[in-house]
Amino acid sequence: MKPIFKSALLSMLFFPLTLSAQNFPAGTKPNQHNINGAEWPRVGEDRRVHFRIHAPEAKKVEISFRGEMTREDDGYWTLISNPEVIGFHYYQVIIDGVASADPNGKPFFGMGRWVSGVEIPETEPGTDYYKPKDVPHGQVSENWYYSKINNKWRRCFVYKPAEYAQNPQKKYPVLYLQHGMAEDETGWSNQGMMNFIMDNLIAEGKAVPMLVVMDSGNIEVPFSMNSGQSRNEYGRDFTPILLTEIIPHIESNYRVLTDRENRAMAGLSWGGFQTFNTALPNLDKFSYIGGFSGAGNIDLNDLSSVYNGAFANISEFNKKVPVLFMGIGSEERPERARNLADGLKAAGVKSVVYYESPGTAHEWLTWRRCLNEFVPLIFKN
Amino acid sequence: MKPIFKSALLSMLFFPLTLSAQNFPAGTKPNQHNINGAEWPRVGEDRRVHFRIHAPEAKKVEISFRGEMTREDDGYWTLISNPEVIGFHYYQVIIDGVASADPNGKPFFGMGRWVSGVEIPETEPGTDYYKPKDVPHGQVSENWYYSKINNKWRRCFVYKPAEYAQNPQKKYPVLYLQHGMAEDETGWSNQGMMNFIMDNLIAEGKAVPMLVVMDSGNIEVPFSMNSGQSRNEYGRDFTPILLTEIIPHIESNYRVLTDRENRAMAGLSWGGFQTFNTALPNLDKFSYIGGFSGAGNIDLNDLSSVYNGAFANISEFNKKVPVLFMGIGSEERPERARNLADGLKAAGVKSVVYYESPGTAHEWLTWRRCLNEFVPLIFKN
Repeated sequence: MKPIFKSALLSMLFFPLTLSAQNFPAGTKPNQHNINGAEWPRVGEDRRVHFRIHAPEAKKVEISFRGEMTREDDGYWTLISNPEVIGFHYYQVIIDGVASADPNGKPFFGMGRWVSGVEIPETEPGTDYYKPKDVPHGQVSENWYYSKINNKWRRCFVYKPAEYAQNPQKKYPVLYLQHGMAEDETGWSNQGMMNFIMDNLIAEGKAVPMLVVMDSGNIEVPFSMNSGQSRNEYGRDFTPILLTEIIPHIESNYRVLTDRENRAMAGLSWGGFQTFNTALPNLDKFSYIGGFSGAGNIDLNDLSSVYNGAFANISEFNKKVPVLFMGIGSEERPERARNLADGLKAAGVKSVVYYESPGTAHEWLTWRRCLNEFVPLIFKN
Repeated sequence: MKPIFKSALLSMLFFPLTLSAQNFPAGTKPNQHNINGAEWPRVGEDRRVHFRIHAPEAKKVEISFRGEMTREDDGYWTLISNPEVIGFHYYQVIIDGVASADPNGKPFFGMGRWVSGVEIPETEPGTDYYKPKDVPHGQVSENWYYSKINNKWRRCFVYKPAEYAQNPQKKYPVLYLQHGMAEDETGWSNQGMMNFIMDNLIAEGKAVPMLVVMDSGNIEVPFSMNSGQSRNEYGRDFTPILLTEIIPHIESNYRVLTDRENRAMAGLSWGGFQTFNTALPNLDKFSYIGGFSGAGNIDLNDLSSVYNGAFANISEFNKKVPVLFMGIGSEERPERARNLADGLKAAGVKSVVYYESPGTAHEWLTWRRCLNEFVPLIFKN
């Protein structure tokens, strides 16, 4: 017996596939996040993105952040972007004013919805740290648990190093790793390629084998000035969820070390803000802290009182926190982060590590690099 | 430091969220696959789906398989579907002829691309077998391995029962479970809710704890009559990939039983066709076989020669294959499957189990039910 499809469905099925036979611009390759068989968008060696959409009935077709497409005679619309910053960029296709994910692309949860992503590859040698290599691969597993705080089933993703299964007695340190505003617990695996970054660092002996836990920071719905919610309230319930629900769930379901010396937290953008809000006032629970393009509101003139007095005794802080990592991209106005890092160093906070990612913006390539820089520094004491 | 967003990005961020304040039709609830905060589409108690899309600039807006939407004065387009069959249905939003996933929905890989899904809930008691319950939950993990046959990195998903970690010496039987045409290895976890079905069956003692392996059948790109490929060639390379790459990968990375009595294979639609093509000629490797809305081309008049003579000696087949499961939905023309099952029974194939899912179509609710019926039957000998 053969599968049964309505002819309507069949025609939909063939739609994305029968229209992609054409000559391709020299030096371009399909975007690496296109679905199987999709030739467009294409990325050029000159870092321009070539978009091509079949929309004979549309009045206006745009690509978000890049502008209006040009209507061609054959019912296709085309746009060649300016040379783009290296890395991963979100985009949507906007048909007569309605923005959607590109039907030819793999969707990523960002911008508060499922959107598309285009990757401008790095060309320098040694930039394959987030690519799958012939090394032992860990697993990212989906875990469900009931949250009394949110009153619903929640899901977290857990990366286990390849060696975990081969060492049934061994216990591992844990990094709690957060996404940014309008993203969710899928971000680090999908956009962040974290599993390949961890596999490669561990295989090269640069990082200690560890678990990485990625959960929702309850900031999928973007912060709105209209919501009446203050910026400080936004995503605040993640702290008690992490401390009283996620950490106990992980520690009762995995072979992990449970002392503060073996617990780290890092996050990107708003997740970095949440990391500082969660880890600094709870230094009895965390010893390594990372903010990737996002950190805290630290008034350097009032250092003794911020974060429950975490910095009140700086020599004590230096003993407790071997690494306070602050990373940011050179293309996203790094001055404030750099000044904060310099100010903390000047105040005697020896554990500050400042990293500036060359040529990258407030986007995932910055955060992949931050993870790649941060992870080798932790759990080494 | 606060996250930094271009104002363009900010406006995109707020776009899906600021337009959803209105009165809702009585007796409707948001589709369970809507993203966090999205109120539309909504599903009524009468099984009608209420769609509402903001597209003030569009000339024509359609919902696939349901027809044209009506333009309202406020820039929204609306459509109320006819009462729909219970279960999970794919759909796309079509703006001036361009079909995309619904920006308000979670995407599912089906129809050869990432599309949306609407769920018409079952209302009868005892239909919560695929819902998360307060029982021990297994994990679905993502596993990467290099395929020499496809010459690329491939991903498979592996369900481990909750007890797996608590029994470090125990080895488990394995079910290899396949998706259908134009779907991929994500289907059983996303559309199929297989992890909750397995968790519930195992917790109730109805099913033996087992691993379930879900990989790509290499049929993401829909079969095309134009490709020059015969239907029999389509997805054929999955058989050697399963036998020589996936099974060895699983058996060297998990605590599993490796004899034929502890290996089962099932698949839906074209995945059922692949299951029969793979398991029946290799009965030295598989002992339980399931086809969900998809099975083989079995000429009952030539039973002795089909599938390398699997049925040549029927009493031998009955000893080797305790369960040959054939399930199908009552709303998808079940006659051929029923006749095949009856014919095999009449020919003496005692292990045939025929299951007809009442009121369901060639869709995922049929396949969730098939899994729920099949799994309790296997690995019991």
